This record gives sequence, C-alpha cells and structure tokens, in this order.
Amino acid sequence: MALVRIGLIGAGYMGKAHTIALQSVGAVFETGLKPVCEMIATSTAEGAAEHAARWGWNRSTGDWRALIADPHVDAIIIATPPRTHLAMVLACVAAGKPVLCEKPLGCDPAESLRMVEAVEQAGLANMVGFNYIRTPASQLAKQVIASGEIGDVIQVTAEHVEDYLHDPALPASWRTRISTGTEAGALADVAPHIVNACLRLVGPISSLVADTQIVHATRPGPDGPEAIENDDQGQMLLRFANGASGSLSFSRVAAGRKMGYTYRITGTQGALYFDQEDQNALWLYDAAREPARRGFQKLLMGPPHPDYLAFNMGFGHGTGYNDQIVIEMRDFLRAVESGNAVWPTFRDGYEVDRIVDAALVSARERRWVDL
Amino acid sequence: MALVRIGLIGAGYMGKAHTIALQSVGAVFETGLKPVCEMIATSTAEGAAEHAARWGWNRSTGDWRALIADPHVDAIIIATPPRTHLAMVLACVAAGKPVLCEKPLGCDPAESLRMVEAVEQAGLANMVGFNYIRTPASQLAKQVIASGEIGDVIQVTAEHVEDYLHDPALPASWRTRISTGTEAGALADVAPHIVNACLRLVGPISSLVADTQIVHATRPGPDGPEAIENDDQGQMLLRFANGASGSLSFSRVAAGRKMGYTYRITGTQGALYFDQEDQNALWLYDAAREPARRGFQKLLMGPPHPDYLAFNMGFGHGTGYNDQIVIEMRDFLRAVESGNAVWPTFRDGYEVDRIVDAALVSARERRWVDL
Amino acid sequence: MALVRIGLIGAGYMGKAHTIALQSVGAVFETGLKPVCEMIATSTAEGAAEHAARWGWNRSTGDWRALIADPHVDAIIIATPPRTHLAMVLACVAAGKPVLCEKPLGCDPAESLRMVEAVEQAGLANMVGFNYIRTPASQLAKQVIASGEIGDVIQVTAEHVEDYLHDPALPASWRTRISTGTEAGALADVAPHIVNACLRLVGPISSLVADTQIVHATRPGPDGPEAIENDDQGQMLLRFANGASGSLSFSRVAAGRKMGYTYRITGTQGALYFDQEDQNALWLYDAAREPARRGFQKLLMGPPHPDYLAFNMGFGHGTGYNDQIVIEMRDFLRAVESGNAVWPTFRDGYEVDRIVDAALVSARERRWVDL
Amino acid sequence: MALVRIGLIGAGYMGKAHTIALQSVGAVFETGLKPVCEMIATSTAEGAAEHAARWGWNRSTGDWRALIADPHVDAIIIATPPRTHLAMVLACVAAGKPVLCEKPLGCDPAESLRMVEAVEQAGLANMVGFNYIRTPASQLAKQVIASGEIGDVIQVTAEHVEDYLHDPALPASWRTRISTGTEAGALADVAPHIVNACLRLVGPISSLVADTQIVHATRPGPDGPEAIENDDQGQMLLRFANGASGSLSFSRVAAGRKMGYTYRITGTQGALYFDQEDQNALWLYDAAREPARRGFQKLLMGPPHPDYLAFNMGFGHGTGYNDQIVIEMRDFLRAVESGNAVWPTFRDGYEVDRIVDAALVSARERRWVDL
Repeated sequence: MALVRIGLIGAGYMGKAHTIALQSVGAVFETGLKPVCEMIATSTAEGAAEHAARWGWNRSTGDWRALIADPHVDAIIIATPPRTHLAMVLACVAAGKPVLCEKPLGCDPAESLRMVEAVEQAGLANMVGFNYIRTPASQLAKQVIASGEIGDVIQVTAEHVEDYLHDPALPASWRTRISTGTEAGALADVAPHIVNACLRLVGPISSLVADTQIVHATRPGPDGPEAIENDDQGQMLLRFANGASGSLSFSRVAAGRKMGYTYRITGTQGALYFDQEDQNALWLYDAAREPARRGFQKLLMGPPHPDYLAFNMGFGHGTGYNDQIVIEMRDFLRAVESGNAVWPTFRDGYEVDRIVDAALVSARERRWVDL
Repeated sequence: MALVRIGLIGAGYMGKAHTIALQSVGAVFETGLKPVCEMIATSTAEGAAEHAARWGWNRSTGDWRALIADPHVDAIIIATPPRTHLAMVLACVAAGKPVLCEKPLGCDPAESLRMVEAVEQAGLANMVGFNYIRTPASQLAKQVIASGEIGDVIQVTAEHVEDYLHDPALPASWRTRISTGTEAGALADVAPHIVNACLRLVGPISSLVADTQIVHATRPGPDGPEAIENDDQGQMLLRFANGASGSLSFSRVAAGRKMGYTYRITGTQGALYFDQEDQNALWLYDAAREPARRGFQKLLMGPPHPDYLAFNMGFGHGTGYNDQIVIEMRDFLRAVESGNAVWPTFRDGYEVDRIVDAALVSARERRWVDL
Repeated sequence: MALVRIGLIGAGYMGKAHTIALQSVGAVFETGLKPVCEMIATSTAEGAAEHAARWGWNRSTGDWRALIADPHVDAIIIATPPRTHLAMVLACVAAGKPVLCEKPLGCDPAESLRMVEAVEQAGLANMVGFNYIRTPASQLAKQVIASGEIGDVIQVTAEHVEDYLHDPALPASWRTRISTGTEAGALADVAPHIVNACLRLVGPISSLVADTQIVHATRPGPDGPEAIENDDQGQMLLRFANGASGSLSFSRVAAGRKMGYTYRITGTQGALYFDQEDQNALWLYDAAREPARRGFQKLLMGPPHPDYLAFNMGFGHGTGYNDQIVIEMRDFLRAVESGNAVWPTFRDGYEVDRIVDAALVSARERRWVDL
Repeated sequence: MALVRIGLIGAGYMGKAHTIALQSVGAVFETGLKPVCEMIATSTAEGAAEHAARWGWNRSTGDWRALIADPHVDAIIIATPPRTHLAMVLACVAAGKPVLCEKPLGCDPAESLRMVEAVEQAGLANMVGFNYIRTPASQLAKQVIASGEIGDVIQVTAEHVEDYLHDPALPASWRTRISTGTEAGALADVAPHIVNACLRLVGPISSLVADTQIVHATRPGPDGPEAIENDDQGQMLLRFANGASGSLSFSRVAAGRKMGYTYRITGTQGALYFDQEDQNALWLYDAAREPARRGFQKLLMGPPHPDYLAFNMGFGHGTGYNDQIVIEMRDFLRAVESGNAVWPTFRDGYEVDRIVDAALVSARERRWVDL
C-alpha cells in the first residue's frame, strides 16, 4: 500500500478539519494512496508541537518554509488566511509538491492568476478547498442537471448567508479591515462558496450587477469604535453564458441563518432545491408527471447517490460537515496519485475570484459588468 | 342594519371570488354595512344573466355603464382586465360611487395616476385589490416589523413565482401580447403582489435594477408559432428609503412553484419568513434569546393574530384564499361606510405601478433607476 | 332555481361556521338547490334574534321545536351539544325533515343507534358533520388508497391532538364532567374525527386496545378545585378487518399541537402522509420509482384534485377551515335534493361512536376488545 | 500521551464504522487515551488480513479468541451478530479486558443478564452500542427534559421505522428466521434503538401492550417460497414509572421511511420533537411564551449544544452518522481510562432487552404485561 506523507500549514478551524479527514479517509474510501500525518506547521514551534501531540502528527515546525522543503513531506495542504497563500504556493511550486489550498485562493484575481500559472507551468497537482459542493446532495444536483433531467436551466436563486457578525457588539477584526482581510467582506468570506456552486451547477457567468452594504458602520475596536471597511451583506443579479439568469445573496449579518447555503435551480422540464442546513436531502420536481401528481420530492441521500455508500450507511443515516472534507481529501489523494489537477483546480478558484472582483467593481460603480 | 347594494363588473376568476366574499363577509365580520349582491355586468346580457342566476345576484346587464349609473347600485367592484379599468373608474367617479378595482390599477403609471387623481379629487372611497397581503400571517408580519420586534429591517429576499406558463406548448394569449396585455409580462401579472408586500412591510423603494427574460421565444398562436412579447421571468435588486436592500424575483415559468409568494425579512434583532404555499404560518427568529435557544419558530395562526378570530376558529384551523377576499371586502365595506379610502388605496396601487415601470426601464437600459 | 329553506339550531362555533357555508355554497358550487337562511333557534328568543340580525337569518326563535315544526323550514341543521341531539333528531323524524347533525351523534352508541334507526325507518336524508375529512387533500388520500396506488394498506399511525386544555389553570367545564359531557373526554372531543378518518381511509376496525389518562387531576371549579372526570389524553392500538394494524393518539393537553390531526398510511407499494396544520398538501411516496428517485413528494392541492376547482383557484392558493364546511354543505344539499343519505350518514357516525365506546371499555378493563 | 490498543471483532457495517471512529476520535476530542487500531478479527484469516490492509489495522486474525487473549490488545469491540456476543463477552471477562458490544446485547434477556453479571462481577468497563441517541440533538433533548424545561413528561409518541425489507421480493435471510435471528424481527432489529431513547429520555417503563405482524408471509428462499418467522412491523402502548404514557412503532417494511427514528415528547410546560432524518435539528415548544408567540422552534445544532463544538464547526454545519460513532468511541475511551462502565452500560442494554421480551409476550398473549 502506497503512502503519501502530508504536510499541513495552519492549525485553526480548517487545520483541524483536514486532520480529521486525513485520519479517516483511508478507511472510508478505497484510496490508492494512504495519507500519513507527517508534519504540521503553525506560526510558532511550541504551538505546532502542541497541535502535533493533540491531533496525532508525527512532526511539527514553526517554519512553514521548512515544512514545504522537508524531503519527507510529499504533498502540502495550506489552511491559513488568504494573505499568506501566494508565498506558500510559490514555495510548493519551487519544491515541486502537489498542493491543496483553502479558498479564497488569492486576495485578488491577479494574485490568484499568478498561482494558477505557477502550478500549471510546473505541471503540479493542485486543488482549492470548496467543501460544501461535495455533499452527496450537491453532487446529485450536478448529475441531475448535467443529464438534462430538468431540461435547460433557466433560472437560479442562490444564497450563502450566515449571521456570525449579526451582533454589532462583536468587535472589529482582520475580517472587517481591508488591510488584513480584503476589500470584500461577506463577499469574500461566504459568497465564493455559492458562486462556485453556481459555476459548477449552471456554468460560466457572463455578466452581473451587484450591490453591497455595510450594515453596522462601526464595531468595537482596540481604541474605541472602529469604522468597518468592507461589506456585511449584498446581492447580485447574474446572467449565465447559457442564457440562464439568477440572483445571489450573501451576508454575515443575516439573523437566524446559520448555514444559509441554498440554491433553487429551475429548468425547462423541472427544478431542484437544496438547503445546506438539511444537507442530506435534495428536493426535485419533475414537470413531466401528470398534473395531479406533480410536486417537489424530498430525496434523502442513500447508497445510490454520489459518494454516499463509502460512508457505509443506509438511506437517511446522513453525512455531516467533516464527511465533506473526507470526500475532498479523497479527491486530493487522487490528484497526487495521478499527478493531475482535480476539480476544483486553482483555475476554478481563480474563476470564482474573478466573479467576486467583478461584483466589487459593479457595486462601486453601480453598473452591470461583463466578464 | 344598513345595506350597501354592490355592482360587480366581471364574471371571471376574481368575479367569482368577490361574489363568494360578498355573501359570507356579513356573517364572518361584524360589519356596519351588510352588502347586497345587487347587479352583475359582463360583456353580454346573456352571460350576465346566467352568472346572476348561478351565483345569486339580483339583477344583471351586458352594459357596465348601465350598472355604474344604476340608481340602486351604491358601490362598484371592478374585476375585469387592466385595459378596461380607466374608463370604468372614471365612470364611477362621474357617478360618485365608491370603487374597488382589481390590480394592476392601470396599464402604465400615467393611467394609474389619472385614476388616483380622479378619485381623490372626487373624495371617493377607493381601494385596489391586493389579496395575498391580507392573510393573518402577513398582517402579523406587518405588526412584528412595525413594532420593532426584529429591529431595523436590513435585508429582504422576496419572490412571486408561479409556473402557469411553464409549458412552452401553452398557447400565446392576451397575456403574452403587448397590444392586449402590457409591455410587462410576469412583471405585471405576479410581481405587483410581492412589490406591494415589500412596500407594505419595509417601506418605499428608492432605487432598483432589474433584469427580465423571455424564456420561450414563441408559443403556438392562431396562425402558427407566435413571438412572445413580454417577460416570462426576471429579478431585481432593491434599495429602500430606510437603507435596507433586497432582491425580488418574479416568474410565470418557475416549474414547481404554484403560489411562490415568499418573503424573508432580516432585521438588526431578528428575522421573519413567510411562504404563501403554507399561508397559515409565520416563521419568526428572535436574536435576543440565549444562543442555545435561538431558532426560527413556526407560529401557526390563531385567535390572537390579526383578523383570525372572526373566522371562528381555534389555532391551526386555517384560513384559505377566499378568506383573504373576505378580509378585503370587510375593508372595502369600511371604506364605503366611512367615505374614506382604505389601504391599499388607488395611490398605493399607483406606487406599485411606478415600481413595475421603473423595472421595465431598468431592464431595457441595463442600469439602476432611481425612484 | 329551486330553493331549500334551512333551519339552524345553535349559534355557537359551529352555528357560525354553518351560516357562513350556507351563504357562500351556492356561489362556490353548482348546487341543484340553493339554500335560504330561513330560521335560527337558540336557547332564548333574544339571543336568536340577535344572531339572526348579525348573521343574516330571515327569522328566529327561542324554541327549537317550533323551528323543526315550522312549515316554511325544509331541512334542519343541528349544531348544539351532544346531550341535546337525540330529542332534536326524533323531532326531525316526526316532522319528516332531512337533518344534518354535528358530531358526536349521541352520547353513547345506544343513543346513536336510536337515531340511525329512526332516520332509516323514516327514509330521511341524514348526515353527520365530520368536516376535517372534507379537505381536498384528505379526499385525494381516499382516492389514492381506493385506487390501489399505494398497494394494500398495512399500517396506520394517526392522531388528533390539540392543547386547548393544556394549561391546568383552565377551569373545569361541561367538557370535564361526566354529567354534562360524556364519560369520554378527549376521546369524545377530538378522537372521533380521526377515528372517522381511519374508517374512511382504511376500513372497518376489528379490535382495539386503548389507554387513557387524566393528566391534571383537578381544575379550578366554582367551589375550589374540582376533580376532573374524563380523559385528557390517550392512545390505542388498532386492528383493521383488512389485516392492517395501527396506532391512534388523542389529546386535549398536547402542548404545541394546535390542529394535530395527522395520519401516515403505509401500503405494500407506497405511503402517504397528511397533517391538518398544513391542510393543502398531501405527501405521497411511490415505492415503484427507481431507488435513487424515491422520496416523499409534496403535492400541493390544485384544480385536478377533489373539490378544489370550485373554489376558483390555481394550485397552491389554498382552502381553509370554512371551505371544509362549504363542501359538507354541498353534500347535505345533495342529500336533501335526492332524498338519500350522503356519507357520512348517521350510521357512519354510529360506527365511530362504537369505536369510542370500545375504547372506554378497553381502557377501563385493560384488555383488547373485539368489535 | 497514553495509548490503548484496540481489538475489533467483525468487519461488516459496524466494523467499518468503528474503524473510522477510532481513527478520527483522537483529533476530534481531547481524549486522555489515544486508540491504536491494533488487531482485527473476522471469520477467516484471509478476510481479516484484507480488511486490516484496507482499513489500516496493524494485525489481523481469523480467530477471535486469539484476539481477545492477545497480550498486546487492551480493549475489545464486538461488532458481530447477536448470537456470537455471549461467548465473546465471557472471553473478555476471562481476559479481564474492557468491552464495547454492539446492540442487541443478547438474544434474550437471560443471555443479556449473564453478560451483565459477568462484567459487573469482574468490575470491567463495559458499554453497549446505541449510536442514534448520541447526536447533539438527542443529547440536548435529554438536557431539556432533565432540567424541567418542558415540565413533567406526560406523553411520548416514538417510532423506529425503516423500509429495508419493504419489497416482498427481497429474500428470506438470517434476519427472518428464528433459528438464526431471534423470535423478534423488526422488534429486535430496530425497536431497541427507540426503546433505549424512551428509557433515556423519559425513564423506566412499567407496563406495555404490544401487537406485531408478519406482513409478507413468505419470501424467496433457497428452495422456493420460505415462511417468514418473525415480525415485519408492530406497535405498543407504554406506561412509564413516572406516570407518562405513550405509543411506539417499529417496522422494517415502512415504505418511504429511511431513518424513521422520531420522538415527540410532551410535557406539562412544553414539548419537543426530533426526527433522525434531519438529525441536526431539535424542535422545541415553550408553553410559557405569550399566546401570539407560541410555536415550535427549530433549533439547529451549534457550539452551545452537547458534543458539537469538538467537531469544530459553526451552527448548522452539521454532524452525520459517523460522528455519532465518534462520540460513542470517546465515551468508551473514557470508560477504559476510568475503569468504570459508561452509559449505556450492559445493564442498560439488558433493560432494553427486557422491554423487547415483554413485547413478545404481550403480542403473543394479547394482553398488557407489567415489568
């Protein structure tokens, strides 16, 4: 059984999720390569050592460059904030190592494009971490649409709205400052996931008009009220290359919405609906049935659906958030094994970044933007 | 007990609904005036006579002008296609009779404004027929927002989408032709209801950008395929005078959506959600509860909620479509009794028409339009 | 157009509902007979006169015997408490007048049987008022089962649970005393509706075992705490003549359940589910579909479904509680016109009473009871 | 960091689930002991070796007695059919090793009691595998009830119904034969999970009456149609020691129900509802709120809820089936570390077996059975 020794940079939220996935993916799927948790890097040697002990990594370091360069590390996972991605990816390219990078790829499309070109020229396996689209239900949505089961797509209503900054008493942070985050707020934090879903399920976006807002002008800062610099919420109208239209909402202040990643996709012969808060169901409507027997059908995920059976369960047993990461990891292992990029590649991540950037321009200039 | 003798013009879908409401409103509510189904007019004397017999009207006529002028008719209900409204309303004004007119008021804002000015100058009670907003749940939504229970409104996602023209084999009709319908398709048919809801619940709209589409370019016509002239679907971004933003979708081709009149309204301290397909529930989220006990609450309508108890029922017994019309009729009787216009007045209808018109301009010129 | 002059006894909750239905049924349905609200009787002449004025009845009386005997009254509706039914029905029989009696028919099966035999021997049209089963969705459920669409029924889980006496601070009343109500509490108040549904949808019950409980032993009475004499809640196991089995719950203290009239019926080839709190939907499962496309389908009621189109609406517009009574009234008018009993007849009501009585015996003796 | 070397017997459905959980539990939770996948046993050495390689176990064997006796194996997980449990547990006791055994513990209460007494006399950590009750939502239900938040429990409606044998064309198997399965069919397969939930959430059961049925009398066997020997479905009425009553359904032929493990629990001050098919939500009703704001609230699981935060996620990200097993494994590691049994202990499993046995007696003799 072939092994691949993984190096992980970052020990936050996503670092833990990747660790859990690395440790169980080999039992869940029949992967050709079995991952080894070889080395973890955080900003300090002490922190890295502690996380290595707690999570079960063989070695640790406070120097991510050392991790990437280590001869006993075969592939890299980057789970750090966006501003650090570019240097790390270029180091991976220099070291000739396959790389999985968390979203968003870069802080702007120019950065992302540099990364895309670097990995493509080097011929390295690469992948960007969009996990939500990995659920069996969203994979089934892709199958349903691709097979023509709902006809030609004509309309999409999508959103990724949460309420993690709903309370104005929550302090300003790197997320709310342009200097440390990006010019985009919720537009960078949550919108990329649902933009990615739209691209995956419907196809390229040809034009858009966006509107964004800062809802809470200030939040508590270290020296008193601090002005918030990027959007709390917004929405856009979309036109797709295939003629479909749609709307898309994003928010970090949407009271009551916890994982409000939903899409409703209408076609000429049917429709489907998905809500990440009930991630084990896909709602499907078939317009060809007799009128008295037409209605949305709640399909609970089960063994016949994509990537479900490997989790070893009957219909309705259910997968969760960490299982999405396990599926992602399986795909990254395939990328490493084959040497080829696997969807979503860095280029797919770049396409998402282009939409986010166009939305920023559109909101600023209050006009439609062609892509 | 005072009586008011009603004259109804139109014996279609809405004519029947108004008849049913007129006959039961007096038993449901303690109205000061009891309506009498005095005279019905349709385009032919025979048709009118037949409907009078079937539905229980005292008299009938094939001439709507005779009905309006009849000395034994006290108040008028207009339930005919939009192109006929202006002349009828002006005749009511000439006769000095209170008038309830179905939506949309006019075929364009200029027409609507003429009607508004006519009834206002004459000091006549007037009302326009937006029924969906009459449900106890939508009235409760209004109460909740007006009382500040969810704080300041910051975002709205709304839609009125149906699928009555989803099938491209359905023939062209007056609805799909500009000459007989209006330049707006679904934008005139369904969008006014949900625009009205946004105005009622959130307040005036200050600017918008809209996008519309003809999904099926042709439909069967009397002489073969006929080009469709107005929109099948569309969506808009909204900015409200109070600073809230939102998106709004409308469609006559949304497969699977039967009464897809929904709104999700987010405030700084909570949120609410309503879906007309389950019209006896309002979902309410209170952000002030402790974190472990926060969640959307499904409020089933009951005696403490607006206009519910008169229907004589316990919680959850449920009202339906015709009950909305009964509530509307109660309000029209109040208008007639007091001599004052009652919300939604012709002017409220005109405000809706202005939004529809701005959306047409915005879609045509691909730009934001201020109101 | 033939008229039928109705006499109504009772001006409570159901009296109002019947009044509303009588006034609109003629416009909703193409009935052969049009009802006239001729005379209303309550316990006092003053009260009757007041209700007649408020609701629109031509005449009134404080003497129900006078109403039944009145030569200008053609058919009788009884909407009074159960203890009054027997005498009124026998008077109707003596007068040879068709009669619609509210449920439960009698206070015990012996009383009910006397009424059944009286109307049957007299050959009078008769009907008992079970309204919930009249919804388009429950009628559709009947169609689906009768057509074999879900195969042979094998199991039923049903309930009628509400919370109108959930609060122990609510006072004792006629409902909680055997002398004024019946030996059965919730078992008589709510269970008959869902027992009737089981009989209608699945067929005769051959045996049962029941368990009942008084949850709040006392409630405030006129002279301090008063002992409660009949059941607050209970449940039973059922065996049907066709071999199916099931369970059935009933309660007046089920916190949070407002109109908890639900049934889930499983067959050898599918299943269906209905919840009165969302009365415009029927959930249907077809086991013959391919495994990856099996799921409960939410059918929103619309024009192809039973008794929906007459309410003049598109799919999803929705009917409510009062519309159930309108449908019931249409059937009673048919009964009067034809001279024949219409389902549910007095005999059907008697069959429900027999089940309730068997449940009392079973609970008292803690054993299965055969029917 | 202390290690515990695990020996696993069984490589079926649950064997895989335990493997996945063992590999990730250490990263998910801060466990005092970190498990090592030391040895796996199946019925053949070849099969065991293959599973060891595929799933990542250090060693393997075709002899479960050798596994239990192995000096480098510290604790045992039994994931084999019920008929094998007794001998394995007694071997664990002989070897003095902590043991986690899948449910049902024994084939009848007598067997289970032997195991209980053996581990208790030996003072060994022991646990039985009821996974569904481990979800954050079901743990929250336990908290809510235990804290008195819904008052005293008065009624329970529960079920565990699935449709894995719904199709009569599915062949007879060990499950449908008494000689290889047990006298109980669905009553042994699925009912124990929901019986366990009732015991956990409401308390001891004092009496019951049950009814069971074989729906499909025969299924294809190796030599033609074979008679089915145990129940396909059934239901029972329950009385609890604390005075509450309830009903409970179980089925393996409930068309459309995939993971129909639901409970609705009503108290004197509120109610709650859970459905395993949407396992990340608990519905809660608080009767103390003002009447116009009473309704079931959908609580999406999140960091404040039991055992959620360790999975490293925000509200609504969701846990799945395998996460239940991870939680179970965390508890088993605690048991091993402390040397004490952890809920649910073998004795808890025995209590479930007693209920199942009483239900068999009740169904056979058609009478209530006291416990």
